[in-house]
Amino acid sequence: MNFASDNWAGAHRAISENLERRASGYETAYGAGEIDKLVEKRFCEIFERDLKVFFVATGTIANSLAMAAAGKPGGVAFCHTGAHMIADECGAPELQSGLRLHGIAGPHAIMDAGALQSAIEAYPPDFVHGGQAAAVSVTQATELGTVYDTDAIAPVAEVCRKFGLPLHMDGARFANALVGLDSSPADMTWKSGVDMMSFGGTKNGCWCAEAVVIFEPKLAAQMAYYRKRAGHLLSKSRFVAAQFEAYFTDDLWLQTARHANRYAAKLAALIDNAPDLRLAWQPRANEVFAITKTTRFTALKKAGLVCGAWRMPSEHQNEIGDDETLMRLVTSFATGDRDIGDFARLIS
Amino acid sequence: MNFASDNWAGAHRAISENLERRASGYETAYGAGEIDKLVEKRFCEIFERDLKVFFVATGTIANSLAMAAAGKPGGVAFCHTGAHMIADECGAPELQSGLRLHGIAGPHAIMDAGALQSAIEAYPPDFVHGGQAAAVSVTQATELGTVYDTDAIAPVAEVCRKFGLPLHMDGARFANALVGLDSSPADMTWKSGVDMMSFGGTKNGCWCAEAVVIFEPKLAAQMAYYRKRAGHLLSKSRFVAAQFEAYFTDDLWLQTARHANRYAAKLAALIDNAPDLRLAWQPRANEVFAITKTTRFTALKKAGLVCGAWRMPSEHQNEIGDDETLMRLVTSFATGDRDIGDFARLIS
Amino acid sequence: MNFASDNWAGAHRAISENLERRASGYETAYGAGEIDKLVEKRFCEIFERDLKVFFVATGTIANSLAMAAAGKPGGVAFCHTGAHMIADECGAPELQSGLRLHGIAGPHAIMDAGALQSAIEAYPPDFVHGGQAAAVSVTQATELGTVYDTDAIAPVAEVCRKFGLPLHMDGARFANALVGLDSSPADMTWKSGVDMMSFGGTKNGCWCAEAVVIFEPKLAAQMAYYRKRAGHLLSKSRFVAAQFEAYFTDDLWLQTARHANRYAAKLAALIDNAPDLRLAWQPRANEVFAITKTTRFTALKKAGLVCGAWRMPSEHQNEIGDDETLMRLVTSFATGDRDIGDFARLIS
Amino acid sequence: MNFASDNWAGAHRAISENLERRASGYETAYGAGEIDKLVEKRFCEIFERDLKVFFVATGTIANSLAMAAAGKPGGVAFCHTGAHMIADECGAPELQSGLRLHGIAGPHAIMDAGALQSAIEAYPPDFVHGGQAAAVSVTQATELGTVYDTDAIAPVAEVCRKFGLPLHMDGARFANALVGLDSSPADMTWKSGVDMMSFGGTKNGCWCAEAVVIFEPKLAAQMAYYRKRAGHLLSKSRFVAAQFEAYFTDDLWLQTARHANRYAAKLAALIDNAPDLRLAWQPRANEVFAITKTTRFTALKKAGLVCGAWRMPSEHQNEIGDDETLMRLVTSFATGDRDIGDFARLIS
Repeated sequence: MNFASDNWAGAHRAISENLERRASGYETAYGAGEIDKLVEKRFCEIFERDLKVFFVATGTIANSLAMAAAGKPGGVAFCHTGAHMIADECGAPELQSGLRLHGIAGPHAIMDAGALQSAIEAYPPDFVHGGQAAAVSVTQATELGTVYDTDAIAPVAEVCRKFGLPLHMDGARFANALVGLDSSPADMTWKSGVDMMSFGGTKNGCWCAEAVVIFEPKLAAQMAYYRKRAGHLLSKSRFVAAQFEAYFTDDLWLQTARHANRYAAKLAALIDNAPDLRLAWQPRANEVFAITKTTRFTALKKAGLVCGAWRMPSEHQNEIGDDETLMRLVTSFATGDRDIGDFARLIS
Repeated sequence: MNFASDNWAGAHRAISENLERRASGYETAYGAGEIDKLVEKRFCEIFERDLKVFFVATGTIANSLAMAAAGKPGGVAFCHTGAHMIADECGAPELQSGLRLHGIAGPHAIMDAGALQSAIEAYPPDFVHGGQAAAVSVTQATELGTVYDTDAIAPVAEVCRKFGLPLHMDGARFANALVGLDSSPADMTWKSGVDMMSFGGTKNGCWCAEAVVIFEPKLAAQMAYYRKRAGHLLSKSRFVAAQFEAYFTDDLWLQTARHANRYAAKLAALIDNAPDLRLAWQPRANEVFAITKTTRFTALKKAGLVCGAWRMPSEHQNEIGDDETLMRLVTSFATGDRDIGDFARLIS
Repeated sequence: MNFASDNWAGAHRAISENLERRASGYETAYGAGEIDKLVEKRFCEIFERDLKVFFVATGTIANSLAMAAAGKPGGVAFCHTGAHMIADECGAPELQSGLRLHGIAGPHAIMDAGALQSAIEAYPPDFVHGGQAAAVSVTQATELGTVYDTDAIAPVAEVCRKFGLPLHMDGARFANALVGLDSSPADMTWKSGVDMMSFGGTKNGCWCAEAVVIFEPKLAAQMAYYRKRAGHLLSKSRFVAAQFEAYFTDDLWLQTARHANRYAAKLAALIDNAPDLRLAWQPRANEVFAITKTTRFTALKKAGLVCGAWRMPSEHQNEIGDDETLMRLVTSFATGDRDIGDFARLIS
Repeated sequence: MNFASDNWAGAHRAISENLERRASGYETAYGAGEIDKLVEKRFCEIFERDLKVFFVATGTIANSLAMAAAGKPGGVAFCHTGAHMIADECGAPELQSGLRLHGIAGPHAIMDAGALQSAIEAYPPDFVHGGQAAAVSVTQATELGTVYDTDAIAPVAEVCRKFGLPLHMDGARFANALVGLDSSPADMTWKSGVDMMSFGGTKNGCWCAEAVVIFEPKLAAQMAYYRKRAGHLLSKSRFVAAQFEAYFTDDLWLQTARHANRYAAKLAALIDNAPDLRLAWQPRANEVFAITKTTRFTALKKAGLVCGAWRMPSEHQNEIGDDETLMRLVTSFATGDRDIGDFARLIS
């Protein structure tokens, strides 16, 4: 029973099959082909507006290129202290954009808008020494499996508007957040003040399909050059397009996300009822965080549970004992009843 | 009949099928899975030695990361004036490595070793103003469809040894050169003084499968970090591995390359016999360059020929008339007898 | 009475006079002249060992080039949260080195060695996602006018040794720390585990004289190129050398530092005895931090006191009231009895 | 007799004396002081318009920051093949701006406008692979001691206008060009289509006084941040201002430039009449290039002539024999009759 990560699963059969279907015949390279255009149109329909889509190979570069679009000399981008951009991208955003990443605290990986405002105010206009505020990024769903609902995103967007900063959304698990919130893509993004996003398909059943989606046209002006300079303009770009084509067909992406979230909820329910495990916090997407004695965790692993130990965020340090471990369980399109059954047996 | 580029073709059926076969089941992400390891072992077998392999999504980033491995402040990398790194990578190598690219002339896209030596000598040790020589890169097969045979690579490698510079080979079309030269991977690379290479699969039947291959261990020391920082550490890395797995099975890669080269030779023979076309130079891989009147070129395009006009290299400017066009025709695994037949009819 | 900063003062007469004395005659440019060599030798004598000196124009670039010497892809440098490198250099260290700056907390601007160790441990070897630990930097004297005494520097150096990280010292106010600690340059630096430093002369009576001083030879290997690439190789380099020449003659640098520190101590004594001001902490160099009611601060400014309001470090937030202001008073070679007398009258 | 370079001379007495005069008293740091403002106003008067001035420590960084102002991803700046930016700045412009430098040929270091246009056209809009044209830079006076007169600058400026590219002038020896052309600062720059320039004082009698001067306001928008990020915001900025103050007083800068040019003309006349030396080309500023037998050159050096051997530009390779050396003699404010007399005796 494997709950290590949604990127340990392979590709959904519908994705692979479409890749095979789209493998033959010639298509203009570098994103100018027919399939690319079809899929770009689908993005517009899904988000209910004109927008620009730039396919890339990883979520890390999607975030990094979005930051590049907001780049300024001595610029600073604000994101949660535990954001993927800070914690797991090895300096990629900094290389592409020249921006510094400034961590903002907040419980459950949700950025505190007040802390954000204070942090931005530490970079007053024309005070050249410290640098200048340049962008804000939120992750949806967050790295802790929670989500920004309307009440959480609105004050962040308000701060962005106040200081004239572009708001970016890291949507590596966008679909999981979307079905978790039962919202619409438009409502969750540009209607909430989001100017650009990283749209992830890989964790939700694709092989390798990510995109920078830009709602605010002027942020897209140089993006084609940024992407090429990053080595992320794929020659056989249609292979990403073909993944997204299948991803969006018959709402596959929503089905796989619902599937993953539903199994996460099942895991959460099992943990909630287990005598020696407890939920760290309530999951809202496809990641479940649980706390147990470290000895128990070791035993579970030995018994066949594949999942990771996680660093407790500083905001929640007092919620865990020295002899306890925070464990992360991630579900995906590939999770099945058998995994849940095995897990139930294991912890009971 | 489409001879626009080998990257306009999709994926070879064997590649797509293997992707489907490898789509299910869990694998450790980020290159640590079993399929990745299997394929890395295959690389060692194919090159007859220990080496390091780093999968990436594009040839541009493979080149760029190789340059990063050779990076120095104020450093300069030398490659042919028409090299892909200079002409078609939008500053990607410079961003990743901080190196400047210095073009070296030479007929048929083959770097002149004497010119290389003179260029390097313009960066004497300890003369800080100009910067410092850092690396040399050759393209195999070249951007003009020619190849470095042993006599061509040896003097370049000798200059590299003399100045202590790492030698990189851009092998976006490595397989085509390999079968064109009837050589072995080992002979063409590390046995000829090559320290690292970009190994391309995409142009030869894969969807998106490229790798930085490093023979000289110390050049690999930081590569994992460079790749991650470039946003090119793929989470579902096995999808590249699975492509290479199929690519190497039953020598598919050599078959597809031979196929493409054979059809290029057929094109060349047709052109050689055509009354109003002539070969710009003899093709040695899967790219054929031909010269014709511009009016004729326009007519051919209108009649259904899909191929590109190319900029005549400065070394060959006197071989083309003002009213003529240099055209490039590229073959691939997907080229078939019908394409050749159509082309024969078209030009006769 | 001006206590705004030590860089609001001009140049010490001995510095200016030596510039005039050295203005005539020819000297090899770019740091290869006789005066440069003489001064480099003086550095070796002062630090009691062989070392490498690289003159530059600002402390910001001295820090940045030192970081460049420790650069690695995805690298992270650790310094105090309030360090000049983080707070006041507009991304210069990041641009030159590619490193991220990671703030470490600690009271009175002294890095906590335990917190440092924990932070470094969050970058385990071979975990490529987060990046890699690359360097540690301390500021001596600190940005809060305190100093690292032997007990403070030893555990930081021990952590560096343990993890194999180079230790850098930002010595923009090195002379003030030196006389404040009554130590020797050697004891305070390489004998305490410091591998390289930024040696500042500007704040202590020079016009514009800073240097990267490197004790660990391998860190100096590329420094000449880093400096030139930063645009900091001065053609008439002797003008920096001439400043340092005067600076070191008859221990001028120690005299001016003692002078500044002595006046800071006088300010501190006056504040300690003033009814409505209090010292934020005990000064150890030439910066005095005091707390007073904001209304009182405004009145003092209006009455002619020139000095800055400072942001209270987060570690000391509970030591200041909402209606209070933290003020910074800096003394220099130019501070005189009259300034102190005026200040005494003002606050009494 | 020293003709090695104008930067081997020290500082003009009037500069040094003014530094001493301005050494005492407090001034707001970081360029906000009264002297800075006075000098900025003088720049406006001298150039007969509003403009922005940014003091820096070297010509290399002035050029680099100007390029940064024109930066674009995958951007390319065009300058003469032998331009200081390409030949002598160790990658500084590339680091600051991210631009690639593309060399344009032309005799006597004067860029050929036709070649410039062709080069720019190789970067067609929206062809992302090659990158994008971003800026053009000319050097005035050139690296070969020649100047762009109105007829030379006009076609370059016209090409810039046509393609919407900013035109930068590297004015490391601006004063020498100005008096050489008997023109006005305004006519030579913005009235001729120059958008920004590097204004050099160091080679013409200052210690260390350079400035980025920006005529086109939007290019100045981020310059304060670029400069600080480069580590070139000097704290005691008045020391640059004080140099420029003296430099502009009583037209000192024009006098020293006239002095240097006059002595260069004397050198040229002597060379023209010498039996075994010849002028490589006619000098127009303060650099004289002469050709002689290499054996003769060696003898002259042994006899006390201090000057450099220079690489013959490729455009002029056929004007020099294999047994000959191109020598460069540079005059400055410090050159005197005795130097000329010694030289006359030496070569006669």
